Amino acid sequence: MTTIGILHPGEMGSSVAAAARAGGSRVVWASAGRGEATRKRAEADGLEDVGTLVRLARESEIILSVCPPASAPDVAREVAATRFGGTFVDGNAIAPATTRAVGEIITAGGARFVDGGIIGPPARKAGGTRLYLSGPGAADVAAHFKGSLLEAIVLDGPVGAASAIKMAYAGWNKGSQALLLAIRALAAHEGVDAALVAEWARSQPDVTARSERAVSANIKKAWRFVGEMEEIAATFEAAGLPDGFHEAAGEIYRRLAGWKDTATPPSMAEVAKTLAP
Amino acid sequence: MTTIGILHPGEMGSSVAAAARAGGSRVVWASAGRGEATRKRAEADGLEDVGTLVRLARESEIILSVCPPASAPDVAREVAATRFGGTFVDGNAIAPATTRAVGEIITAGGARFVDGGIIGPPARKAGGTRLYLSGPGAADVAAHFKGSLLEAIVLDGPVGAASAIKMAYAGWNKGSQALLLAIRALAAHEGVDAALVAEWARSQPDVTARSERAVSANIKKAWRFVGEMEEIAATFEAAGLPDGFHEAAGEIYRRLAGWKDTATPPSMAEVAKTLAP
Repeated sequence: MTTIGILHPGEMGSSVAAAARAGGSRVVWASAGRGEATRKRAEADGLEDVGTLVRLARESEIILSVCPPASAPDVAREVAATRFGGTFVDGNAIAPATTRAVGEIITAGGARFVDGGIIGPPARKAGGTRLYLSGPGAADVAAHFKGSLLEAIVLDGPVGAASAIKMAYAGWNKGSQALLLAIRALAAHEGVDAALVAEWARSQPDVTARSERAVSANIKKAWRFVGEMEEIAATFEAAGLPDGFHEAAGEIYRRLAGWKDTATPPSMAEVAKTLAP
Repeated sequence: MTTIGILHPGEMGSSVAAAARAGGSRVVWASAGRGEATRKRAEADGLEDVGTLVRLARESEIILSVCPPASAPDVAREVAATRFGGTFVDGNAIAPATTRAVGEIITAGGARFVDGGIIGPPARKAGGTRLYLSGPGAADVAAHFKGSLLEAIVLDGPVGAASAIKMAYAGWNKGSQALLLAIRALAAHEGVDAALVAEWARSQPDVTARSERAVSANIKKAWRFVGEMEEIAATFEAAGLPDGFHEAAGEIYRRLAGWKDTATPPSMAEVAKTLAP
């Protein structure tokens, strides 16, 4: 039986870990320095606590990193410091160039590096979430998710490809939602929001609902989209494309970060006031 | 019978002029300095050529300005120089602040100023195109389009409101299309375009078709979206919102400007190569 270590069992990470268990692996995590919510999620998904990162690295053949984009290089450095010699999968929403830098940290430490990109919500329903994988060793990793709720898809491309599809997908999904929220804020600021909604009802009937979903689905998560938007902006820039779309999207989500712990989603008027007082 | 002067009968302007005729007005234009294509459109729509701007201003109770965004202040200055004393409607895709500056030019010249914003394609079919109007005198102008293919809608707001709804509408419509084209270019540049399209087919089934429509519908017009994106960026900035979305969108359309005279739309791969070689 393969042992897979998960860093760290957040909402997404614990669902990935649960999928790895369903695929037939033993899955371990390291509780040192993690909070109570993480412990509860790990226990609910039947993950085995090995205490420290050093022990996790010693026991695991595969380590999966699922963390906020800004933490991805640090997590890799910590793993490399353990002299981990297995396969490290970075599943984070980071730019291909960041991924390659993470890969260099990992391979310099003596491990094999696989690029990953997760598209969809936490994998709790069949058919809803994909783990894209690329680079040598991608197929070996994918095999461990067979029959689970997380569909692993191996891309025919080098390290960087799985990150790139994640950046492109989120670049539209979260980028367009930020644009929509900014448009609603502009219309409200200019006193034409009702007129805009009436115009959309006639000529673009799905857009108002999309803008409202951008609030209800994202408002509590806006704070953690900021780093992802920065990675997408860097991805655009590296490809010679303008980075302004996602610099702006990052700024929109940054302004909405204060709604993190709201019990009920704010109204569109409240969101607009937060964005353009 | 009211006489309405149109500056200038381009594709959109001539359809607006035709609607004004259908609403019962005499519509005149000034051929001095205009090209053959403009003359043909004006004649096809039954507009009367009065030769010069000075004569057009003398004969018209209302002047409609429908021109590229960057030309709007110049058109207003030329009209103000004639000492025109009627009602001037700026129907251009310009920022509220630009509109207010145009309004000051016009009222300093002795005329009344009405703000206009056109949403939809050239008005050749019923129900497809709206002329939003705001400011004192908006209702008088709207009355002249009754029963025509152009629906005039009076906004309950000052000069600037009609421009604002146009900026918000185009900010989503043309802004999101530029973002989609940039995303496809990024995916192609990174070698994951086929994988992205396959992912979209599963989780966002309308997006690929939208990105393809962004090519077929816009590629020949991209050159003239640049100025409009700059006006939208200025509108965002004036409202305290990030201007990056539309600075980037303007850059995307700028890079596509070379397809202006293409006989057939390029493939997505060709568009991607133009945007991110």
